[in-house]
This record gives sequence, C-alpha cells and structure tokens, in this order.
Amino acid sequence: MKYIESMQNTRVKQWKKLLGKKERDKSRKFLVEGFHLVEEALKNGLVEDIILKEGTDLPVKWDVELADLFTVHNEVFAALADTDTPQGIIAVCHKPRFELEEGSLETVLLIDRVQDPGNIGTMIRTADAAGFSAVILGDGCADPYSPKVVRSTQGSLFHLPILKGNLGDWIERLQTGGVKVLGTALQGAKPYREIERADRFALLVGNEGSGVSTELLQKTDQNVYIPIYGKSESLNVAVAAGILMYGLKN
Amino acid sequence: MKYIESMQNTRVKQWKKLLGKKERDKSRKFLVEGFHLVEEALKNGLVEDIILKEGTDLPVKWDVELADLFTVHNEVFAALADTDTPQGIIAVCHKPRFELEEGSLETVLLIDRVQDPGNIGTMIRTADAAGFSAVILGDGCADPYSPKVVRSTQGSLFHLPILKGNLGDWIERLQTGGVKVLGTALQGAKPYREIERADRFALLVGNEGSGVSTELLQKTDQNVYIPIYGKSESLNVAVAAGILMYGLKN
Repeated sequence: MKYIESMQNTRVKQWKKLLGKKERDKSRKFLVEGFHLVEEALKNGLVEDIILKEGTDLPVKWDVELADLFTVHNEVFAALADTDTPQGIIAVCHKPRFELEEGSLETVLLIDRVQDPGNIGTMIRTADAAGFSAVILGDGCADPYSPKVVRSTQGSLFHLPILKGNLGDWIERLQTGGVKVLGTALQGAKPYREIERADRFALLVGNEGSGVSTELLQKTDQNVYIPIYGKSESLNVAVAAGILMYGLKN
Repeated sequence: MKYIESMQNTRVKQWKKLLGKKERDKSRKFLVEGFHLVEEALKNGLVEDIILKEGTDLPVKWDVELADLFTVHNEVFAALADTDTPQGIIAVCHKPRFELEEGSLETVLLIDRVQDPGNIGTMIRTADAAGFSAVILGDGCADPYSPKVVRSTQGSLFHLPILKGNLGDWIERLQTGGVKVLGTALQGAKPYREIERADRFALLVGNEGSGVSTELLQKTDQNVYIPIYGKSESLNVAVAAGILMYGLKN
C-alpha cells in the first residue's frame, strides 16, 4: 500500500485526467467509484489501481492480488470522486472488451443521441435486467464510461456488451442477421401492444427532446409507440425503454 | 414590471426561502422554472409572481393578468434558479389543491420512502402518461414541490392529484372502496405478467435500496415482481414503476 499526499503527484494528475472523455478514449481506462462497483470490476478482472481515502479499509474478502493499492490524502480523494458523499474507494479500470458473435445478438437496445448520463446508465441497467444481448450507442450519446453513467448502470456495464457505432450500419447488419428492428416514433407507428412479442428483436430509442432521427426511422422494420392516456406529453426515455423492453420481449 | 437589483430586497429574501421545504410547507407556495413549466402553471391559474432575468422576454401570447411581474438582476436570478443553464424565467406558484371524490380513484400509484427527487418526478410524469387517477406519497418521500421534482414531472404535477398521507391508512381506504392493492416485493410475490390486467388497482412501490416496508406489504391484496433475466440485481424504481403501471393496466 503506497500513500500519496500531494495533488502534484504524477499519478494523481494521470488519474484526474480520467474524469475527461478524451483521456478515457485514449487510454481505454475509466474510474469506478464505491464498494459495490469496484467489487464488480474486480470480479471481471478489470482493475488496475485501487485508491482508498485515508481511514477507509479494503474488505478482507476481496482478491486484490492483481491491483496496485494506494491510500491518498482526503483532498486528493475529493478531486477524483464524482459523488457528493463518496464511500472512500475508487478504482482505475480497463474498459471491458467484448467479442460479439454474429448469431448471438438476439435482443439489442439501440440508442440514438441520448445525452443525459443518468438515462444512458439506467437504460444499460434495464437492458441487463431484461436479458438483452447488447446495447449499442450511436453518435451523440453520453460517454458510457463517464462517472455518472457508470454509477447509474449499478454494475451492468460489466455484464453486457456496450458498443459504439453507426446506428444506420447496425440496423442493416441486424436485419441481415434476421433480427427485426423496431423504432420508437409517434407518426407512422403502432401501439406497442399490437406488436407480437418476439424472441429476437432490436429496439431503437432516441434523444430526450427530438426522439429517434427521421433518417433512422426510415430504416426500421416497424415503428411503435407507447399510448399516452393522460395529459403528459411524453415519457422519460429510460422509462419508455423499460416499458418497451419488457413489453415486447417474449 | 418592477425591477429588483438587490439581494437584500425583502421580496427576494422571501422567494429564496421557497428553495427550502419548510417555507414551501408553511406558505403552500413553490418555485417553478423554465418556459414550459411556467406556462403550465399559468394555465392552471396558480401563478402569483413571474420573475424574469434581465434580458429575458415574456412570450406575447401568455395571459399574465393575474400575476405580478418582476425583472431581476442576474445575481438575484442565479440565487433563485436551480438549473445550471436557466432559461431566465421562474414563477412563484400556489400548490394545486385537489378534491378527491372517493369513487373516482380507479388507478393509484402509492410511493413508500422514495428519496431521489428525480425518481419521484419521473414517476409522477409516468403516472400521468399512464392515465392514473392520483399519486400518493407516504412519509420519507422527497418533497414533490422541490425544484428537481417539479422539473422531472415535466408539468404532470399540475395534471393529476399528488397527495401525501399515511400509506397504511390509504391501503385500507382503497380496499374498502373496492380497489385491489398490488405491492412490489421479491418474496411471496407473483411475476407481474401472471396478474390479470385490471381497470381498478393501486400499485405500491418503495425505497431505492430496501423496497416497500414489510409492514405495508402485509396489507396488500397481492404482491408482484418483475423477473430479472440478466445479471443486474434490480431495476431503477422509476423504470420498475413504469413497466408495472403499463404492464398491469387494462
């Protein structure tokens, strides 16, 4: 266990950079905060460094053989933490790498330009719960490795493949593989309960304000909507994705 | 239109107090931020004061005859705003008053100790969309008139009755009126898809970490759960409430 006191320490400066997307993309590393999430990362063999706030103990049961351990001054810890009341533990992790076998994609969530980190994280968590095979993020989505997304996934980003890619290409690829692609739209769409539940399908959801882009909606096999029975104009995108993932799945 | 420059102005001090629950409870007033929400409040005749940041214009179409109009210095506005990038308009509103006719409660969402304001607001918005008759908040829930809840409801708190009360009493009252009460629990519960869809029912959801209290679960007619097909341990409470409100409703 090494102790680091100074904010000027080279390693601290390097860790701090991981709060930004640029460094996360370049290094393929990211920060994970809190006991539950660090434990999930350890189980998946992704942890490089464990950073403890002074006075915080490592759970005895944990297997941390492969990680470097550091205790840091409160001020250093506060500079790395993203939560208001941190639990005193942060890990530097490698981004998981996923190999996708073409035929293995049975149910997929495609996300078009959803910007709120909490919404992205919650959708990843729900896709995991609903037993989806993968989540694919198009351009303009919040970075899935930002601290807030990581936290909202509650560990699900270690469980299922999260990919980035061109959604137009992905729709074609899925269709070629026999997966029906369902977009979400208000016009030219069917109420989701009129769609037969299926074993294999992809669900495409979109931006908080403008929904899925018209261009992508034209490529889908069918578009669906959730009926609004009251006076609200729309649903939160993460709630809508949850209703549809569970409502369409066999 | 009056202009207020000083943070020391009595009225500004009074407005600022509305950022706290104590003053909101006492005065039965609350703050609403942004054009869309202020417009909804105006339509419902609830606006007392409209506060504009210097340089912000009031939409010409709005009927503001009954409201007092103020333009305030940027610093004053910033002290009242809750968002990072405010739109420049805030209204002081009266809390809506709802009269509930006993027989009118067909579908009700009961919320037990949900603490996150975003979750409360999102559930109110979803309950509105799903055509629910009312939302009832038990002790320990986030205040529905806090700025973050108001924002997450996207205006739905002006559309449907939001009540506070003892949930044990409410369960009995609903049952007496012939409304079936469904709790959410992992033990002694049925998968929600095995429950027949109904016209009249109340759904009871609970705390982010511990769920619905055991005491309340014993009073329900039936408890249900959402099956987890993947590796995540649970769902976000607002997503779960959405899946169930739409999944159980006729």
